[in-house]
Amino acid sequence: MKTTIDCIPCLVRQSIEAARFISDDENFQKKLIENIMQIIAKPDFTKSPPAMAQVIHKEIRKISGIADPYKTVKDKFNELARSILEELRDRISSSPQPLHTAVKLAVAGNIIDSGVRSELSESDVKKSIENVFSEPVKGDINEFCRQVEQAEKILYLADNAGEIFFDRLLLEKLHHPGLTVAVRGYPVLNDATMDDAVSAGIDQINTIISNGSDAPGTILEDCSEEFIDHFKNADLIISKGQGNYETLSNVKKNIYFLFKVKCPLTADHAGLPLGSNAVLQSTHFTVKV
Amino acid sequence: MKTTIDCIPCLVRQSIEAARFISDDENFQKKLIENIMQIIAKPDFTKSPPAMAQVIHKEIRKISGIADPYKTVKDKFNELARSILEELRDRISSSPQPLHTAVKLAVAGNIIDSGVRSELSESDVKKSIENVFSEPVKGDINEFCRQVEQAEKILYLADNAGEIFFDRLLLEKLHHPGLTVAVRGYPVLNDATMDDAVSAGIDQINTIISNGSDAPGTILEDCSEEFIDHFKNADLIISKGQGNYETLSNVKKNIYFLFKVKCPLTADHAGLPLGSNAVLQSTHFTVKV
Repeated sequence: MKTTIDCIPCLVRQSIEAARFISDDENFQKKLIENIMQIIAKPDFTKSPPAMAQVIHKEIRKISGIADPYKTVKDKFNELARSILEELRDRISSSPQPLHTAVKLAVAGNIIDSGVRSELSESDVKKSIENVFSEPVKGDINEFCRQVEQAEKILYLADNAGEIFFDRLLLEKLHHPGLTVAVRGYPVLNDATMDDAVSAGIDQINTIISNGSDAPGTILEDCSEEFIDHFKNADLIISKGQGNYETLSNVKKNIYFLFKVKCPLTADHAGLPLGSNAVLQSTHFTVKV
Repeated sequence: MKTTIDCIPCLVRQSIEAARFISDDENFQKKLIENIMQIIAKPDFTKSPPAMAQVIHKEIRKISGIADPYKTVKDKFNELARSILEELRDRISSSPQPLHTAVKLAVAGNIIDSGVRSELSESDVKKSIENVFSEPVKGDINEFCRQVEQAEKILYLADNAGEIFFDRLLLEKLHHPGLTVAVRGYPVLNDATMDDAVSAGIDQINTIISNGSDAPGTILEDCSEEFIDHFKNADLIISKGQGNYETLSNVKKNIYFLFKVKCPLTADHAGLPLGSNAVLQSTHFTVKV
């Protein structure tokens, strides 16, 4: 997906949120936004929205000297998800189709996305959970499960802190010995890094690798060799979240995109209504990896 | 009110809407937005949001060579309002307090505001009408009516096309010989100009003057001498809409602001919940006119 003019207000809004996370000082916030606007004012429409966000948030960290402006937000979301983990695990084990339930919950957890909205309450998360059970999921969960079973090597691309606890429950159910989990190499927005994955106990289930990048998505040319090796060798990629969809939807690889459709442009691109819960197999095989 | 960092995404959104009204060509839209971003990227936080919007939309008209990008939108809203005029007039005359009903409808009509949202359906307008009767209006309509009766000279500051038909119904009920209606001097957003006021038949009720400005608000230092004379000599100013509130809320003058609160920053400034229907007397007497 390419950045469009409609991405600009959203990139500004994200930057304003980051400025407020860094400082309460309005003068600092204004100065930071004035600086960041110099980047946003020259949008590169050949790049994906996460590639634009990568440049913007790198600059925000550089100007502010704060390595991780979203640390507090991430910790809050991790604690929120941790507090309902047992309840969700019970829900999975007591459901008629535990694996399907775990897949749905992994999609529901994708509501925790600072790229779209950082002001998220426990009630919003619970609404997302109820929504994934009351609304039909877009995609074929049976086929997804079948492909997971057949795959020898799977690469699971995590998305956000908080959400990573929902991923943990799915990874427990998948119980796949050839599955590796990849997280962002450096902090960006509320995206999950190694710390978040370990905090969620993912290391007790599968191997975790860093993708070596600070983009809020998966920009292959920006990822580490280790990550690229795993990506190339995987029979199946499980990609969580919008940022990964926006950067990988045109990549020639067997990818399942598990995400909540939270942006009108992504909705349009995926051909799904806004708000959908998606378990979408990649169909746009245009770029070779 | 001063422009804040939170105004920036909204100013970008307005510009994108204007670009789409001007042309369907995506390359033209991108070029226009890239140009406009050069202005938005240097926000003047000492100015009001309508002062920023004035500069932006002047540049949009200059670059595109289109004198009135919102002409089609304005015509649509005028026709929509015209089509329900008789129904609303009946509602006023058959109500127990016709003048109060006319005041409320004038507030409800302020939903028609391209500064906030151009994608507005007939059903949205009807919802706004029902809302003003089901929710308590913030302010003292009795006191407003008393002051209108006592005033010798009134200046009524119109806001938007479409909405001007709702103003007509209020002007009919006010039936005030010393009342003058002021409209924008030049097209900007969907703000009402002389053409719209005449199209709504305002000239059959009161004298109409132009304010000589192309700001989507009332920036006194930008208005014509004729307008300033009327403003100074009026015992009472009736000011419609958010743009007029944002530019006049600190002016030392007896002003009644009739508007729907459609922006979180205006809500905060006015001390009213978002979505409120306001009949608010000016209390911030800080700047002399």
